[in-house]
This record gives sequence, C-alpha cells and structure tokens, in this order.
Amino acid sequence: MKINVEKCARILKEKDNILILTHAHPDGDTVGSGFALCLALKQLGKKARVICADEFIPKYTALIDGCLEMPEFKEEFIVAVDVATENLLGSLADAYAGKIDMCIDHHGTNSDYAKYLLLNADAAAACEIILKVIKAMKVRIDKPIANALFIGITTDTGCFRYASTTSNTYRAAAELIDLGADNATINRIMFETKTRTYAALERLAIEGMEFYCDNRACVITITQDMYKKTGASEFETEGIAPLTRQIEGVELGLTIREKPDGKCKCSIRTLDSVNAADFAANFGGGGHKQAAACRFECGVDEAKRLLLARAEEVLASK
Amino acid sequence: MKINVEKCARILKEKDNILILTHAHPDGDTVGSGFALCLALKQLGKKARVICADEFIPKYTALIDGCLEMPEFKEEFIVAVDVATENLLGSLADAYAGKIDMCIDHHGTNSDYAKYLLLNADAAAACEIILKVIKAMKVRIDKPIANALFIGITTDTGCFRYASTTSNTYRAAAELIDLGADNATINRIMFETKTRTYAALERLAIEGMEFYCDNRACVITITQDMYKKTGASEFETEGIAPLTRQIEGVELGLTIREKPDGKCKCSIRTLDSVNAADFAANFGGGGHKQAAACRFECGVDEAKRLLLARAEEVLASK
Repeated sequence: MKINVEKCARILKEKDNILILTHAHPDGDTVGSGFALCLALKQLGKKARVICADEFIPKYTALIDGCLEMPEFKEEFIVAVDVATENLLGSLADAYAGKIDMCIDHHGTNSDYAKYLLLNADAAAACEIILKVIKAMKVRIDKPIANALFIGITTDTGCFRYASTTSNTYRAAAELIDLGADNATINRIMFETKTRTYAALERLAIEGMEFYCDNRACVITITQDMYKKTGASEFETEGIAPLTRQIEGVELGLTIREKPDGKCKCSIRTLDSVNAADFAANFGGGGHKQAAACRFECGVDEAKRLLLARAEEVLASK
Repeated sequence: MKINVEKCARILKEKDNILILTHAHPDGDTVGSGFALCLALKQLGKKARVICADEFIPKYTALIDGCLEMPEFKEEFIVAVDVATENLLGSLADAYAGKIDMCIDHHGTNSDYAKYLLLNADAAAACEIILKVIKAMKVRIDKPIANALFIGITTDTGCFRYASTTSNTYRAAAELIDLGADNATINRIMFETKTRTYAALERLAIEGMEFYCDNRACVITITQDMYKKTGASEFETEGIAPLTRQIEGVELGLTIREKPDGKCKCSIRTLDSVNAADFAANFGGGGHKQAAACRFECGVDEAKRLLLARAEEVLASK
C-alpha cells in the first residue's frame, strides 16, 4: 500500500521493537537513512536497530554519535530504507524477504515489495524523505541525526552536483546545517579525502581507461591484481565510476570491478542521452537514470564483451 | 567607507553609465558577479558594461544569455566585484587604480581601496552578496541572472564542498534554482566535464605528484612542456590545485604552474591547520584561509625551493 509522509510517521509512532534494514554494500544514503531513523525512534523511547548484510564503513558512521549502539530485541516491525528490491538486501534477503512491513525509498524502480511503501522518486536521496518523516514524528533533530541525513544527501548527489539535485535538496541541506550538521567536515571526508592506497588505485584506473563507440563509451576495469598492487580495498572504489562520465564526449561510462571469486559487477554512469537503469536492466540490475549497477556471473573480459555489445546498440540508436 | 547591502543598492540605483571591473584570470565568481550585476542594472534602464584584463572563458559565460552584449558609453561610476586588491585587476590596474567608486567583495583580505566598500567575509562567494544587492534593488531575477549567480556560488565553493559553505550558501542556491538556474547543467559543465586535453594533463600532474615534510605537503608542478605534450591550455588547469589537498595526510598543497615567460605562480590549498592566505602573504600573494595564490619572478625550481623552505617552517610549528 502506497502511503504518504504523515501516514508513515503515524504508523511508526504506533510501533515498537523496530528492525531497520539497509541494502548490501551500504552507501551513505542507506546508512544515513537507517541511523537517522533509528536515532529518531530511540528519542521516542522505542527500541530500534539497524542491520546490513555487509559491514558499515567507518567513513559513514564516524560522525553519527551513538549510531552503533544497537540493543537486542525480538523485532515486531521491519522497515527497509533506500532498498529498491528485496534482492538488494544481499545475504539478509533469505531471512527477511516477504516479511518487510514498510519501505521508505526514492528509487523509481522500487518493486513495491513491502506492506507499506513511502516512495518519492523526485527525492535526490532517501534521506530527504526520512527528514520529512522525522519532522512529521515531531522528533527534535539533533546533531547526530542531522549529520546522518546530511551524509545521505551529499553522497547520493555527488555533493549536490548530479541532475537529481533539486532546490528541495539544497533547502534540506541548509536546514540540516542550521540543526548542527558538520557540512564542511562531512564533505571533506566524503569528497576531498583520498587515501594513499585509493589515490594509487585511481591512478591505475585512469591510466587504463579505454574508449569505445567513437569515444562515446568509456570503460574502466578494476582487477583483483590492481587491489593487490595498490593495497586499496574494494570498499574504497566508489570514486572510480564517476571518472568515466567526466571525459568530454562520453555518454556511457562502465566501471567493471572483479570480485575475489573471479565474477564481476559493473557500475554504469550516463548523461541524459542514455538511461542507466534501463541499461542495467538488460543485465538484471537497476538504479537511477544516470547511475545504475548490475552483476555478472562471468569474468571481466566476458562482461566487457556483453556490455560493449549492448553499448553499441544503445548508442547507435541515439 | 564601509556600506551595507541597502546602502549599496540605493547608491547603484542613483547612478548610471556604470562600468563593472572583474579581476584578472577571471573565475566563475567574478564573472558571475559582474554579469549578474550588469544585467540587473540594465533591467533598471541603466547603461552598464563588464570588463576584464583577460578574456572571459566561454564555460562561464555560455549560460548567461545576453551577457556579452556590451554597450559603449563614457563611464560615470566604477564598481569592482570580487576584487580584493587593485593589483588583481591585472592590466586594468593602470587605468582604474585609485578611481574605483565601489567594491563588492567577500575576501577578508580586501584592502579597502574603493570609495564605498560592501564587504562580507562570511559569504562563500561574492555572488551571495550580489544576490542580496539585486534583491534590495527590487530587480526581478530572471534565468540569466540566476545562472550567473549560481555559477559564482558553485565554482567558489567547489560545488558546495569547501569549509566556506554555509547554510546561507545552500539557501541561496535553492532560491536561484527556483528562479530558473540550470543547476544540473552548470554543475556538470563546471565539475563533471573534463576535456580530453585536460584529462591528459591531469594524468601527468597526478603521476608527477611529490610529497614532502613527512607527506604533509604535496607539490604538483605544471610545466610549459606538459601543456605542449597534452594540448591543454593554462586556462583549464583550475581542477589541478584541489588534487593536492585530497590526499590523506596532506595539510598543504602547492601547485606551481610555469608561465610562458619562464616565471611561475603557485596555488596554495590547505586544511584547517595551515592558513593559506598567510602562507601566500610570505610571497606577496593573498586569498582565503584554505585557498590562496602567489606569483614568482623566478622559475619553477627556485619557486619550489622557496615554497618548501617556508612549508617546513610552517608545518614544523604545528
């Protein structure tokens, strides 16, 4: 059932022992949404906990005081945040698919799997919606909540630069700063800080950039060997995918990352001319208009062959 | 004489035949300030013109309709925008130093050279102040003015990420988007588009990064030879300087650029621990707390020696 912000807030206020699910390979928006909501529910005297199939990265959690103190309880109500489809829960899908009571999301591709769905595909980040829900619950937004929401908004918009960013996004940011969000520190950590190992990986990635389809497609391949050579981890590669789309003339950027088991996944970045979510859907993936992802059961070479064959078709039709 | 926004608007409304000066090597903020103010004055039926010692870069002017249509007239009132000191006017200083009636600026280092000074060092961009002046003049902000102001604000804050960005900055951005500013296009052009030649130069710059002072200082040197090798121009190097400060542990980033005559200039980028404007002042330059610049009469090797000697002193004292 589709619900609005007020109904969502009303339902949450009635519930207790709330389990909040984030998507696997957690990014700033799912983490920020999960912890902001959890902290708000705790302020209302409720028990709440956030879980994820993968580990939370300290970069996202360090500025959210108290977010990792998670009480144990038997869950009575399950909420998924920023999770478009149940399979994005990763290893948590086995335990929770089909049992999710509420979903709060901003992906137009949301599969409507929860009992209650609060969806706003115009929001640049799920955290923009969570901000409204928390206000509707009449919870005081303190610094940790403001930081959590700011982290989600700034990371999902590439620091307010993607086309998804609206005046509402900027206004939400202004409001959160006035409520104590450490915007300068957060933006520096998220966007202005490269570890030495990441910088080395990025250098290799840039050196290895390949161009196809009359330079309209750009491919970066990150192999396990490159992680070994640079000491970088697969959890610090999110800055790589946007590099493909930044080169003048590139309409479709493909970043193929090899996993330890030899299979791979691909991050897709596009300009207006190509719909990234549609492109990813060809390979069982999904996402947004200009940023999406998919997974492959094959290795990087075969994945590249498949991706480029589709890229040629798509770009030839434009 | 220091004036406030209302007084500034009142004076401008009384004047006509207004010449607006921008600083040499024009960036988005001086260009956006100059053209926004000019377009607003024209709406009031006045004659106004914007000039600069150097050429306006199309990247900054393309989205400001009508900004380059400049009427000829004998100037009766001279306004400098985003110009901290008269020598930053470049070759225009000879003709206009000592004759400037009004200065609208956000540099704390402003030397108070104009008859009237509207200064707000808390503004992240001069365009934030110009927005207030235009509103105080009761001019309707149309799309070209909104675009001009948005360009200034987003470029001077590195797309809202520098520490100078406040909630007022985000609120100004939201207001300008509602008034028609093409935020997505502007941010893509300013921050998400690299020419092939710039991308090649950036690759060389990253490959040549050097670290000093226990990795607390990072130096990039751009030589004339690197421009030749890559085809990049000196007008597309502004993305290079921020790269130095992005490496984990770096507190002081120095980007030394060789000029065609063999002399050089240096862009300084810092974190909280080092004041960039103070550092630049050692070499006759200036700027902001975390971003400043200075010029040298010597070549890049000697400049690097001088800069690193000072860097060691400064970092050792912290």
